[in-house]
Amino acid sequence: MMKNRTIFFQKPVCIAETATIAGPKEGEGPLRNYFHNILSNDILGQKSFERAEIKMHIYVIKNLLNRMRLTEDDIDCVFCGDLLDEIIGCNYTMREFDIPFMGLYNACATFGEALIIGSTMINAGYMKKVICSTTSHFSTAERQYRYPLELGSQRTPLSQWTVTGAGCSLLTADDTSRIKIVAGTLGRVVDYGVADANDMGAAMAPAAMDTIVAHFKDTGRNPDYYDLIVTGDLGHSGSRILQKLVKDKGYDLGDNYTDCGILIYNREGQDVMQGGSGACCCNLVFNSYIYSQLKRGKLKKVLFIPTGALVSKVSSLQGETIPAIAHAVDIEVL
Amino acid sequence: MMKNRTIFFQKPVCIAETATIAGPKEGEGPLRNYFHNILSNDILGQKSFERAEIKMHIYVIKNLLNRMRLTEDDIDCVFCGDLLDEIIGCNYTMREFDIPFMGLYNACATFGEALIIGSTMINAGYMKKVICSTTSHFSTAERQYRYPLELGSQRTPLSQWTVTGAGCSLLTADDTSRIKIVAGTLGRVVDYGVADANDMGAAMAPAAMDTIVAHFKDTGRNPDYYDLIVTGDLGHSGSRILQKLVKDKGYDLGDNYTDCGILIYNREGQDVMQGGSGACCCNLVFNSYIYSQLKRGKLKKVLFIPTGALVSKVSSLQGETIPAIAHAVDIEVL
Repeated sequence: MMKNRTIFFQKPVCIAETATIAGPKEGEGPLRNYFHNILSNDILGQKSFERAEIKMHIYVIKNLLNRMRLTEDDIDCVFCGDLLDEIIGCNYTMREFDIPFMGLYNACATFGEALIIGSTMINAGYMKKVICSTTSHFSTAERQYRYPLELGSQRTPLSQWTVTGAGCSLLTADDTSRIKIVAGTLGRVVDYGVADANDMGAAMAPAAMDTIVAHFKDTGRNPDYYDLIVTGDLGHSGSRILQKLVKDKGYDLGDNYTDCGILIYNREGQDVMQGGSGACCCNLVFNSYIYSQLKRGKLKKVLFIPTGALVSKVSSLQGETIPAIAHAVDIEVL
Repeated sequence: MMKNRTIFFQKPVCIAETATIAGPKEGEGPLRNYFHNILSNDILGQKSFERAEIKMHIYVIKNLLNRMRLTEDDIDCVFCGDLLDEIIGCNYTMREFDIPFMGLYNACATFGEALIIGSTMINAGYMKKVICSTTSHFSTAERQYRYPLELGSQRTPLSQWTVTGAGCSLLTADDTSRIKIVAGTLGRVVDYGVADANDMGAAMAPAAMDTIVAHFKDTGRNPDYYDLIVTGDLGHSGSRILQKLVKDKGYDLGDNYTDCGILIYNREGQDVMQGGSGACCCNLVFNSYIYSQLKRGKLKKVLFIPTGALVSKVSSLQGETIPAIAHAVDIEVL
């Protein structure tokens, strides 16, 4: 059933297992004990950072398959995206696998998009096992979206640090885990006129508000239905903007609200300004920390809202403002 | 039901209507009488070609809504993509509409991906009306993927001409038209080692072969099941390579095979070398010419195979080979 912008999955879709690999900086952060793997350096012996990002992506999918004793033939499709122009990292990653591939792009909200499309394919009865994955890498994103790394540009106070990592979830038609995707609220493009490519949190907060409020209206729920409401990568300042925007619409996100960009780094000492960002920020936090809390029963109902800034180098240089999008996914222990 | 890589839609999904807008060069080609609209110039009074591409995209969606007397509220989601970095054209297009948006990227195979995901959303019972769209523009693609337009670079013999245009299909849960999406075969990434960014046809032909052969195996059909088998944008030389590759696998595509990149231009006189390419090449040909032939009953069974070269400027400059993908869509008059 779909009500306005929210899909209620007839049969909640199982998140059977996850795999993550985190960069060195992420591995020094507060979630270090939850990641499946941590890199000691972020170039992985490759000739470029793009190649390193691809290697992480290949690794994380292989790791998931191996741990679940699955072969490529068992997977019906991989739904994935990254931040590189033409999602080139995913293209080369998927060259290594004889598995159908559907490339997605909603910037840092892509992981939410993947979970919703993957769940639909399973609920429609077409697919039995799918993988949803995203990656990001500080050094590929920084030089593509902002400045050459060699410049050593000073970071501005409202900037965020792009997460280096890769992560994936295995969605299955069978019930091998109690962790289920129950519903998804689709995002629309929202643009409040922010044009500063170094202040993504402010650009994305209105889109997150738009989707969260739609989710509460479509479901008839209030924020207190959830143990945890967690946005993708608004960071500290963006999260404060979101809380205010949602309050103006009559909902109080309360103490159960936080943001993956806040959770992934220690603000003191890691020099990340407003926190983490990137297509793998919410992915890495969800597939390690949040998934493990759901597994242990410490969390029962999570509203997970990956947020994306729909910006490119060209649009920034052409002086355009930054549209944004957010998709919300209701994940519960059933 | 899904068999290997092919989804058979429980209830075939209706393609209720289409809309297209073609660039000036496309408007001088053999399909000029089939396009809904033809531009007299390709900048549309905008300050950049990117803005012109966005304006075409907005126009074509509004045109479809107007002709079908639909409002934005009637559409559950738009599934779209383009060739620009971060599909920035779609992002700004969707800012103009209060409709959920899922961004897709499989290069010039994106339109096939959109039709398959859109059909699944309808078949799963979640959505009632969705729009699938793509765009491309010669002047945005040329300067992004190859050379600055001002250079006036000489075109190489195996190159293709990126189609300028925008097109969209309206998929519906009801049966307002007899033209139906019956099945879809998902593509995998295939790379035979072609590294020449000016010879996309050769890079994409192996991916088209891989998907077409999978389609025949999964369905138990032969090429003569279809009135028309049409690839996306292999062009003249790529199509010949495809015919040979498919023959090596035991299937003869026969006289009913052609390519949208061949159909869209007059090879003599239009100076397009191997023919058309781009995310809107197959879209423009399908949503105008092929759709009209299906409507008039001149075609009954079409296998439509959008093909995509998964290349970026960075991957070309870093000396990588070009992986490719193709999705096949079985469209029939029922």
